[in-house]
Amino acid sequence: MTTQSSVAPGDTLRRLRDQKPLVHQITNYVVMNETANATLALGALPVMAHAREEVEEMVALARALVINIGTLSPPWVDAMLLAGKAATERGIPIVVDPVGAGATRYRTDTARRLLDAADVTILRGNAGEIATLVGVEAEVRGVESIAAAGDPGDLAREAGRTLGVVAAVTGPVDHVSDGELVLAIENGDALLGTVSGTGCMSTSITGAFAAARPGDPLAAAAEALAAFGVAAEDAAAVAHGPGTFHAALYDALFDLDPDTLDERARVAVV
Amino acid sequence: MTTQSSVAPGDTLRRLRDQKPLVHQITNYVVMNETANATLALGALPVMAHAREEVEEMVALARALVINIGTLSPPWVDAMLLAGKAATERGIPIVVDPVGAGATRYRTDTARRLLDAADVTILRGNAGEIATLVGVEAEVRGVESIAAAGDPGDLAREAGRTLGVVAAVTGPVDHVSDGELVLAIENGDALLGTVSGTGCMSTSITGAFAAARPGDPLAAAAEALAAFGVAAEDAAAVAHGPGTFHAALYDALFDLDPDTLDERARVAVV
Amino acid sequence: MTTQSSVAPGDTLRRLRDQKPLVHQITNYVVMNETANATLALGALPVMAHAREEVEEMVALARALVINIGTLSPPWVDAMLLAGKAATERGIPIVVDPVGAGATRYRTDTARRLLDAADVTILRGNAGEIATLVGVEAEVRGVESIAAAGDPGDLAREAGRTLGVVAAVTGPVDHVSDGELVLAIENGDALLGTVSGTGCMSTSITGAFAAARPGDPLAAAAEALAAFGVAAEDAAAVAHGPGTFHAALYDALFDLDPDTLDERARVAVV
Repeated sequence: MTTQSSVAPGDTLRRLRDQKPLVHQITNYVVMNETANATLALGALPVMAHAREEVEEMVALARALVINIGTLSPPWVDAMLLAGKAATERGIPIVVDPVGAGATRYRTDTARRLLDAADVTILRGNAGEIATLVGVEAEVRGVESIAAAGDPGDLAREAGRTLGVVAAVTGPVDHVSDGELVLAIENGDALLGTVSGTGCMSTSITGAFAAARPGDPLAAAAEALAAFGVAAEDAAAVAHGPGTFHAALYDALFDLDPDTLDERARVAVV
Repeated sequence: MTTQSSVAPGDTLRRLRDQKPLVHQITNYVVMNETANATLALGALPVMAHAREEVEEMVALARALVINIGTLSPPWVDAMLLAGKAATERGIPIVVDPVGAGATRYRTDTARRLLDAADVTILRGNAGEIATLVGVEAEVRGVESIAAAGDPGDLAREAGRTLGVVAAVTGPVDHVSDGELVLAIENGDALLGTVSGTGCMSTSITGAFAAARPGDPLAAAAEALAAFGVAAEDAAAVAHGPGTFHAALYDALFDLDPDTLDERARVAVV
Repeated sequence: MTTQSSVAPGDTLRRLRDQKPLVHQITNYVVMNETANATLALGALPVMAHAREEVEEMVALARALVINIGTLSPPWVDAMLLAGKAATERGIPIVVDPVGAGATRYRTDTARRLLDAADVTILRGNAGEIATLVGVEAEVRGVESIAAAGDPGDLAREAGRTLGVVAAVTGPVDHVSDGELVLAIENGDALLGTVSGTGCMSTSITGAFAAARPGDPLAAAAEALAAFGVAAEDAAAVAHGPGTFHAALYDALFDLDPDTLDERARVAVV
């Protein structure tokens, strides 16, 4: 079982780069390039495939499945469900990003259908999205979480408990929970909020960490967010604004040093 | 009514950043990330949603609708029409970018259908695209305007008058018109022409300005193009070519200073 | 007929920039912005259009057609076949990038259907993808070639001979062959492997060179890969990692100097 001391992002990153796991991603049009590049810069292998004709076969090659509902349409929903079921059958980790859940019924319903149809391992979203899926009042403006009632650590625990997942609620401080233990991750930088798709990148990176640390999704989720946050800190140190931060973020993911990552990770049991 | 003196991009930008309006965008695959990031860097909130199942609901949350026909297919055309009608009913500004009108019948026809079905507020395109929709002879090479007969200011006025929109004809000098008054905007940089999607970005930013200045689309369109042009000037000052310009453009949009924007805006009544 | 001495990337690049050929691209969601920007930075004009309703009309405007199967679905396959047939009838060069052939049957079958239905001029892929289409044993992990049996020069020759194309097999050293002559291109940088879509960019640039050097696809393919590799070398010289390399790559394509390109190109007959 995960404890604070078992969160070891450096070890997992080392294994990830050694194994180069294939992370199958069915994601949105806005961030497809960005999540592929974040995955690749980190050291894993991304593949994007969304056709009903091939998703089950692609899942069979992958070590993790990432599903992101940011730009839906019916054929994509069908493919997500097919891929989710195939990944469940094969026992590979499934990470779901319910982008915009709470903004439209279509997104909320699709996120719920995915949670029902597949054995989702990690659910990564902002407070508004996760609150919507837990059934808590939330204000979502498009795909941005404006306000969610209550404490994000409590929300993560509640989501973990009621949805049967590891919940990763990202925000100024990230919180992950399996329904019992809650870990807070304080890495990151405010510039992350100025670039579209950084939440989606964190989801993809969570998929890569889950592939490299199967069997402990709570630790994997915390490690992924810590690693992504540390990379964001490094990128912010050389950036002049959102555009140069965005480019520097890939440099920083590529340069992430496993030897210093554990001490730089600011993870605490809440 | 707009006059040159009522064009006040600094004020509108200040309001935009204060209100963070949601700008619903149904746009093309090529630029989806870029227009989201330009909108976000400027200070508004982008959301991309194209499913017939959700566009009307998303429009209801938005303060402006941007429709860009750069990579069409029938389900997207249906969604654009649905969203356009919903935005018309709700009275929110609609900005249309007729990418490639004149290159293929499908694009020309779709742009015309949108103009018929919705109360388009601002039509933003290059000279070839706008000329095509006005019925003037034009040469369009793919999505690039090679040559349009006549003066772009006259073209903007003619488009404004005959199509019942504010027309924004962008080029080396941009011209906007409501069919009577014509404003010329001389901000910008030649590097804009070396990055794919900068026209689309200007359309999205026009949507954000239209949201922040409802009721005066002529001023909003001129302000948006001036602001985007000023950001391009700032980006060009630090860029070494198209790639670094592209990154610097987001930095510059984020750093746009409302206090100096009015004096830097080069807007004149033609 | 091509010989080593007839490979003159500087001349072709000069012609390309003078003519600004329109390169119609039906490509994947991940790289659409990137391939458009690479094409534009080089000096040609990209256009992306994938609707069955318009691809034949768009092909008729273009000087080359690029088909990339990186994110397939049935309507896109239909459009690729239609466009491929239209380009064949018009005699314009067709460049196919069989992304992920060998990973799923859908991709392998689609690549084969394209090779059957259209007169493919240049087939550009990694060793695993090309080996799959030749019928040689290969290991493909998602869209990455892990290992292909045998020598890549032999593979290129075999692919050229049996598939009736110019085959361009890219890797640490690139090899192109028309089934008889094999040329090796040693330009490039390891950072290309850290950015998603650089292979797809090289395919688009191959399309632009094929448009500017019709009638000699072997030379055009070698020239394109040499030019892209030289640009990568220039970008790597100023980059700090994948993100800054990516931005610098567009700068370098834009700055490519036709006057020094021939001497910098490292092309040899194998």
